[in-house]
Amino acid sequence: MDIAGLRTDLEGLKIEDNPKIVQQKSRDFYWYSPVLKRQLEQVTADIVVSPRDEAEVIRVLAACHRRGIPVTPRGTGTGNYGQAMPLSGGVILSLAEMNTVSAISPGRVVVGPGAIIADIDRATRAHSGQELRLHPSTYATASIGGFIAGGSGGVGSINFGGLRDFGNVLRLRVVTMEAEPRALELTGEDLHKVTHAYGTNGIITEVEMPLTAAYDWVDVIVGFDSFMGAARFGNALGCQDGLLTKLITPIAAPVPQLYFKRHQKFFREGQSVCLVMVAPHSLDAFLAFTRRAGGEVVYNAASASEEEKKGLPPNYELAWNHTTLRALRVDPSITYLQSLYPFPDHLALIEKIDGLFPGEVFSHLEFVRFDGNITCFGLNLVRFTTEERLDEIIRTFEANGCPIFNPHRYTLEEGGMKQTDEVQLAFKREADPQGLLNPGKMIAWENPDYDYRSGKTFLFKGLERAS
Amino acid sequence: MDIAGLRTDLEGLKIEDNPKIVQQKSRDFYWYSPVLKRQLEQVTADIVVSPRDEAEVIRVLAACHRRGIPVTPRGTGTGNYGQAMPLSGGVILSLAEMNTVSAISPGRVVVGPGAIIADIDRATRAHSGQELRLHPSTYATASIGGFIAGGSGGVGSINFGGLRDFGNVLRLRVVTMEAEPRALELTGEDLHKVTHAYGTNGIITEVEMPLTAAYDWVDVIVGFDSFMGAARFGNALGCQDGLLTKLITPIAAPVPQLYFKRHQKFFREGQSVCLVMVAPHSLDAFLAFTRRAGGEVVYNAASASEEEKKGLPPNYELAWNHTTLRALRVDPSITYLQSLYPFPDHLALIEKIDGLFPGEVFSHLEFVRFDGNITCFGLNLVRFTTEERLDEIIRTFEANGCPIFNPHRYTLEEGGMKQTDEVQLAFKREADPQGLLNPGKMIAWENPDYDYRSGKTFLFKGLERAS
Repeated sequence: MDIAGLRTDLEGLKIEDNPKIVQQKSRDFYWYSPVLKRQLEQVTADIVVSPRDEAEVIRVLAACHRRGIPVTPRGTGTGNYGQAMPLSGGVILSLAEMNTVSAISPGRVVVGPGAIIADIDRATRAHSGQELRLHPSTYATASIGGFIAGGSGGVGSINFGGLRDFGNVLRLRVVTMEAEPRALELTGEDLHKVTHAYGTNGIITEVEMPLTAAYDWVDVIVGFDSFMGAARFGNALGCQDGLLTKLITPIAAPVPQLYFKRHQKFFREGQSVCLVMVAPHSLDAFLAFTRRAGGEVVYNAASASEEEKKGLPPNYELAWNHTTLRALRVDPSITYLQSLYPFPDHLALIEKIDGLFPGEVFSHLEFVRFDGNITCFGLNLVRFTTEERLDEIIRTFEANGCPIFNPHRYTLEEGGMKQTDEVQLAFKREADPQGLLNPGKMIAWENPDYDYRSGKTFLFKGLERAS
Repeated sequence: MDIAGLRTDLEGLKIEDNPKIVQQKSRDFYWYSPVLKRQLEQVTADIVVSPRDEAEVIRVLAACHRRGIPVTPRGTGTGNYGQAMPLSGGVILSLAEMNTVSAISPGRVVVGPGAIIADIDRATRAHSGQELRLHPSTYATASIGGFIAGGSGGVGSINFGGLRDFGNVLRLRVVTMEAEPRALELTGEDLHKVTHAYGTNGIITEVEMPLTAAYDWVDVIVGFDSFMGAARFGNALGCQDGLLTKLITPIAAPVPQLYFKRHQKFFREGQSVCLVMVAPHSLDAFLAFTRRAGGEVVYNAASASEEEKKGLPPNYELAWNHTTLRALRVDPSITYLQSLYPFPDHLALIEKIDGLFPGEVFSHLEFVRFDGNITCFGLNLVRFTTEERLDEIIRTFEANGCPIFNPHRYTLEEGGMKQTDEVQLAFKREADPQGLLNPGKMIAWENPDYDYRSGKTFLFKGLERAS
C-alpha cells in the first residue's frame, strides 16, 4: 500500500497519521463483545483522512481507487459490531467534519453525514419544534451517517419502526468508489441499497431525514415486583394508541439495582422496571393508565425535585445499548445478545426465555413497532463465560423462535439476517467494483460460496494475517 | 313544561323559538338511517338557547333544573345517530357560540365546545404548525364538543386510535344539571365519564385536546382490479411504520364510479380504490411502496394539474361517513352499517363478508389502530329494503364475528357496545340526578331492567307519544 504516494495525492486535505490516534479512530465499541475484542483488537488503519466536503471525498476515493487502497468510512465510532473497523488497514475516512445542518422544513432536514444526532435535534427544535424520529442511545455522540450505515433503530422505534422501513430515511447522496467517483441521489426503494450496509458500497455525503414533532419528553420509571409484570406493562403501554411515548424498556432485576448507579436509590431490592419516555401532554393519561395497570411510579422527572434529578442520566442513556454499557462498566464479564421476540407470541416467548438461564442471562426488552405490530427486541445481558457457551445460548434463542442479530460478528450477514442482501450486493458491484470499501464486512462479496448458515464464523483473510 | 316561565328566567340570553328553526336545530344527520328517519322525524325541541359562556350555561341548567325542563346539548348537529335530538322536547342547548380557541402550546389546545374543528386547526397551524390528531369527515362543519360527546374516531385514527383511548382528550370542563350546577374538571380516567355519552350526564364547556404536527396532507387514490386488492393494500400500508398517513380507505367498486361524481373521470369501470392521505415527506416512499405492492396511482394531488384538481373535494370528504353521504345524494335507498373487523382475522372476515351480499352491501373500510394493532372498521353501504332485512344483515355480520355499531338506533347502548357503561351511569346519577339531560338516550338510566341483548329495539316513552 503506497500510503506515502496517497499522501501526496491528498495534499491539502486533513490527514492524521499519529499511530495512537489512528488506532483510536479505527475502533468502535466492538469491545462490548468478548469475541470481537479478541478478533479485532489488532485492527488499525494506516491513516485517517477527514474530508470537509463532497469534493474532498471524491478526491480521496479517486486516489485510493487508483492506488488500490481500502477505505473504511467512519462517523463517530459508536457502533458495536465493528462496523467501522478497517479490517485491511488503509484509510479511515472520517466524515465527522461534514456536519452541517443545511435545510429544515416541515417534516424534513438535510444534513451532512457527520452531524451529531443531538446537534441536529438542537437545530430543528430551535427552528420549528421538530426532531428526528429515531436515535440510538448514543444520541449525544453518534453521527447521523453512522446511524444510517450501521444502525437499525432505537429510541422512537416504538412509533416509527426501524431505519430501513420505508419513509425513515428520505434521501441519501452517495459517492461511488471508481476511477471517477459519481455522486448518486437515492430515494424511495433505492435507499435500501446503502442503509445498514456498513459503508461497503458507497460513501454517504448528504442525508435527508424525516422529522416529527419535538416534545420535552418526560422520563418515568415504573417498578414491578416481577419482570413479567414489567414486560406485560410495556406491551400494554405500547398498545395504547393515544399515549405518545418514545421509549418503552422493561429490564429485569437485578440489572437496575446493580448497574444504574445514579438511579439505585429509586429501586427496591428485586424490583424490575420499565423505563418510559412520555410526551408531556400524554403524562396525565399515562399516569392514569399506569395506576390502572398496577405499576408503581418510582421516578417521574416531571414531579421529581431538583435534588433528586441531579446528576441523573436521561432514560435513553439507560436503554438500548446503554444498558449493556452501564453493566460493562460495573462488571466487565457482561456482554449481551440482540434478539427479536416475534409478534404475536412475544409475551410467551419472553416469559419462557427469561426462565431458561437464571443468573446468566438478564432480560432487557425494547418495545417497537415492527411491521405494524407492537412487539419487542431483546438486548439481554449475558454473563460471559466461553464463546462456546455464548453460541449455545444463541442456538437456544433461535430454537425457541427468537432470531438473533448477533453482536459478536462483524459481517453484515452474520450480524443480521443470515442471508445475502442481493440489492446491496448488486449495488456494491456497481459502486465499488474493486471491493475497496470497508473490505471484509459483506460475505456475499468476499466469498459468495460461504455457507453462513453452517454456524461457522466467517473469518476475513485480512484478519487471519493480523491475528 | 313552562317554557314561558323559563324564558323569563333566561332574560338576556340568546333564545330562538321560530318553530322552523327550532326544528332544524333539533335534527342531525339521523336521516342517514331509514329507521331513525321513521322514528325521529317528529322530534323537536321547544326552544333553542345559545349561551355565550359557561356562566350562561349554568344559568340555563339551573333554571331548567328548577322547572323540570329537559336539556339536549348540540354542537353543529353533524352526528347521525340522533345523538343531539331532543326526544322529550324542551331546550336545545346550542354550544355553537362558545367557540373560542384560547390557548395553544406544544401538543395542546384549549377551546370552547362549539369551536369548529377546521377552525381549530387553522388557528393551531398558524400558531405553531400543529393540528388535532383526529377529525370526522365533517371536518369543515363539526364542533369539537359534539365530536367528543357523539363521535368515536375518524381521520387520524390510523395513527392514534379512537377518541376514548387514553390521551386523545386531555381535559374536559363539565357543568352538572343540579339546583346549583357545578363546573368539574375531568382528566385521565375520569374523561371516560362523559366522552361519547351524548351529553346525557353533563354539559362540556371547555375542551383541552392533544395536538400533533400538521402537514399539507397529499390526497392520493390508488386503483385495484379487485376489492380485496384494495383491502390488502390498505392493511399493508397501515403496517408500514415509517410511512406517515392520516387516512386509509378501501372502497369496493362500483361505489367510487357511481357516487364520487367529481372523481369519476379518474376511475376505470369496475375499479376498487384505496383513498389515502399521506404526509408530503412520506410521499416518495409511499409511491415506491405502492409500486411494489402493485397498486395503480389513479390520482395524486401532488402531481395533478390545477385543471384536474378543480372542484374536487378532499379525500376525507369521500371517506368515513361522507362515503354514505355521497351515495345517499345519488341514491336515496342507500344506508350503511358500521362494523369492526377484529384483528388478526380481519382480512379473512373482510373477504368473507364482501361475498355475502352481492348487489346489496358494498364494502367500505377504514383502517385504524385499535388496541395497538392495525385493523379496520367497516362503514359498508347497504341498499335498504326493509328493517327486517337490515336486522338480518346485522345478525349475519355479528354471527361472523364482526360487532356492529348500529347507526339505526338512537341509544348509547344499542348504537355502541351493547352493555351498560357503569362509569357513565354512575356519573349521570351524580351530575344529572333528575334525568333531564338528553333524555331517552341512555337505556341504563331510563330502564335498568331492559334486556338490550334481546334484539328488540328500545323505544323511549317520549317517542311513543310522538309517533
